[in-house]
Amino acid sequence: MLRFYNGRVLPMSDGCALTTDEVWIDGDTVSYVGPARADMPEFEREIDLDGDLLLPGFKNAHAHAGMTFVRSLADDMPLQAWLFDRIFPLEAKLTPEDVYAFTQLGILEYLTSGVTAGFDMYFFREAIAQASVDMGFRTVLCGGGGKAEMLEAEYRKYNAYHPLISYQLGTHSEYTSSIGELTDLGDLARTLKAPVFAHNAETEKEVKECVERHGVTPTVLFERLGHFDHGGGGFHCVHFTPEDTEIFRRRGLWVVTNPGSNAKLASGVAPIEDYRTLDLKIAIGTDGPSSNNALDFFREMYLTSVLQKLKTGNASACPASAVLEMATVGGARCMGLEDCDAIAPGKQADLVVIDLKRPSMQPVHAPVENLVYSGAKDVVRMTMVAGRVLYENGEFFVDADAIRNEAAARTKALIER
Amino acid sequence: MLRFYNGRVLPMSDGCALTTDEVWIDGDTVSYVGPARADMPEFEREIDLDGDLLLPGFKNAHAHAGMTFVRSLADDMPLQAWLFDRIFPLEAKLTPEDVYAFTQLGILEYLTSGVTAGFDMYFFREAIAQASVDMGFRTVLCGGGGKAEMLEAEYRKYNAYHPLISYQLGTHSEYTSSIGELTDLGDLARTLKAPVFAHNAETEKEVKECVERHGVTPTVLFERLGHFDHGGGGFHCVHFTPEDTEIFRRRGLWVVTNPGSNAKLASGVAPIEDYRTLDLKIAIGTDGPSSNNALDFFREMYLTSVLQKLKTGNASACPASAVLEMATVGGARCMGLEDCDAIAPGKQADLVVIDLKRPSMQPVHAPVENLVYSGAKDVVRMTMVAGRVLYENGEFFVDADAIRNEAAARTKALIER
Repeated sequence: MLRFYNGRVLPMSDGCALTTDEVWIDGDTVSYVGPARADMPEFEREIDLDGDLLLPGFKNAHAHAGMTFVRSLADDMPLQAWLFDRIFPLEAKLTPEDVYAFTQLGILEYLTSGVTAGFDMYFFREAIAQASVDMGFRTVLCGGGGKAEMLEAEYRKYNAYHPLISYQLGTHSEYTSSIGELTDLGDLARTLKAPVFAHNAETEKEVKECVERHGVTPTVLFERLGHFDHGGGGFHCVHFTPEDTEIFRRRGLWVVTNPGSNAKLASGVAPIEDYRTLDLKIAIGTDGPSSNNALDFFREMYLTSVLQKLKTGNASACPASAVLEMATVGGARCMGLEDCDAIAPGKQADLVVIDLKRPSMQPVHAPVENLVYSGAKDVVRMTMVAGRVLYENGEFFVDADAIRNEAAARTKALIER
Repeated sequence: MLRFYNGRVLPMSDGCALTTDEVWIDGDTVSYVGPARADMPEFEREIDLDGDLLLPGFKNAHAHAGMTFVRSLADDMPLQAWLFDRIFPLEAKLTPEDVYAFTQLGILEYLTSGVTAGFDMYFFREAIAQASVDMGFRTVLCGGGGKAEMLEAEYRKYNAYHPLISYQLGTHSEYTSSIGELTDLGDLARTLKAPVFAHNAETEKEVKECVERHGVTPTVLFERLGHFDHGGGGFHCVHFTPEDTEIFRRRGLWVVTNPGSNAKLASGVAPIEDYRTLDLKIAIGTDGPSSNNALDFFREMYLTSVLQKLKTGNASACPASAVLEMATVGGARCMGLEDCDAIAPGKQADLVVIDLKRPSMQPVHAPVENLVYSGAKDVVRMTMVAGRVLYENGEFFVDADAIRNEAAARTKALIER
């Protein structure tokens, strides 16, 4: 067993209320949250938080972690040219071994910013799952479209693959799917009683062309086809019509916002403050390292808040506490990780320790605001997934040098072949 | 002497062109930049960059570092209420000893993000100068208004105070200055042949009220009074009229953009891409830790770029190389630190080493883009000011614990008294 004590705890089971509880970990699970007790068990390790902050890890609710290989390869380009002229031709040459290596590089980066789970949509799902398991990291695979039989097989396979791996139905987007595939996906969602996720309203062009093709927006199309009969959500959700927003509200679907990617590609700012006012469910994602270009949850949380302040002209919009709920509880529930949403007995020990003694965390008037408004990667003291310390004091408990070298060699070979 | 070798160097003397030169430091000065030589001197320390990136430190061209004590004390409030109801009453109780301690905390944070000089406008300039000198950090003090005799005395005193300290004429803003003070400041600028800086067009309200009071915008008023006869610039410059922009262009004045602060206070996005197109001179600042709330130059560089992409709807706007020039060369020249603008023989050794082996810096397709688009504090391997290593591998070469504890105790006492 493992003991955290003498710190501040944000369990996230009661909004952003802080406690001074102890947290004990047994294997991969939180076993006790409360005051110190007379009947202390034997601990393998006792971690003196020394006033630092323990909270659930951040959940990256939309990413393509394996795209690390194209980071900074084609910046300062608009989305369509970037995607079709630079990214797709390279992706066509990817092998599963490449994706394994590039995903591991992405996971290294997750650990540096306190991310404990990723909702990952990319090619070669077996490679992604294995990359994640081999590092002790938690990944929810998101289906990327294709034939319904394959999706169903994937759904069954990866939801029984490993405790760190699960799978949600999904398709990349309306514009990369045939109507037949989308129809079959809706039928499959009904059969499995499963939620469905997809890129949705990332750009104005995407929505406009969907309306030209199908007479309705992606949201309306997906809903009609049954994608949302058992929940689900959309990635980006920048250019919603009022009808789209109402469908998301009524059905309790997840808006996964990706403010960094949307900013860098000039796609726009999702109206998150409006969604919040309407009680839509919201989670946060980094999108891929090709478009963002970082997998940095501090930056993403900060942007989620301040872009709303700019968009609404109201400095009170999208406050820090709301953002932190999206980044932890929201992300977990969106991804189907209900056992990772808070620090409570029986929950998975997916945790992060924030060093409140770093300069940007001082003074400690308001730890939640410090985290969202002045947090950065240097404040991450520890990242733990399923009870295992994967990153602590800047050091990785995986072979980071080997991962980096393998990814670099494979990037070079891929570009040259 | 000190030797950097086996790395990538961005001297910033030729745009963002990379070299593989060695860089030698003698005392506080760069003594040699070029290939390894047969006649090597004795070095006190030889630093194997191991492929990492050496470049001039970032110059924070607008800040109030001493405002660390109000970080996260009053978030999610609009500028006027925040300033008048929360900040000003606390500031009225500040002592020089407080500002010394709070400035040192701010400088610690600078070091974590590779900032090697700050252009600081705050109360108790002697305390700021001493805080900076005692830590080996470089500060350009900016006058904050007041009687002309005092400003002239400060100008002479701090430009002869210490090699790490210099002083530029300034006033906080039009809205905190009487017309008499502003007139005298213009006369002083002419006498001293010195540039003048002030907050300028941070909010729409500020510009509107200046026009009501004086019939013209702050820029036009300042120009008429002679503030800009020998150069200078403005902090923020969000809400310029075309006439303001033309004055800045024609006179070669510095726009110091503060995108983080302007976003968090919902003040707007300065039209930096327009200014760039018109060849205005641009530098970047964090503003104070009360409004930002971080002093994180990675965040500020990233925002400088992506907010322009959003504002213009053009993903090519404000590319990484332009931002890096603003953050280094631009900032240095704006602050009058011409000897800190690049890595070249005779220049001050104000340098930063970026760890390109951190996950977010991999792969290394484009180091400049990596720095601006996926850089964060965890990639800072070393921060050096005037030839002295002040921060390396996460450790401070000043007594960070003492600084943090002193600032925390003084914050508590200030709020309680």
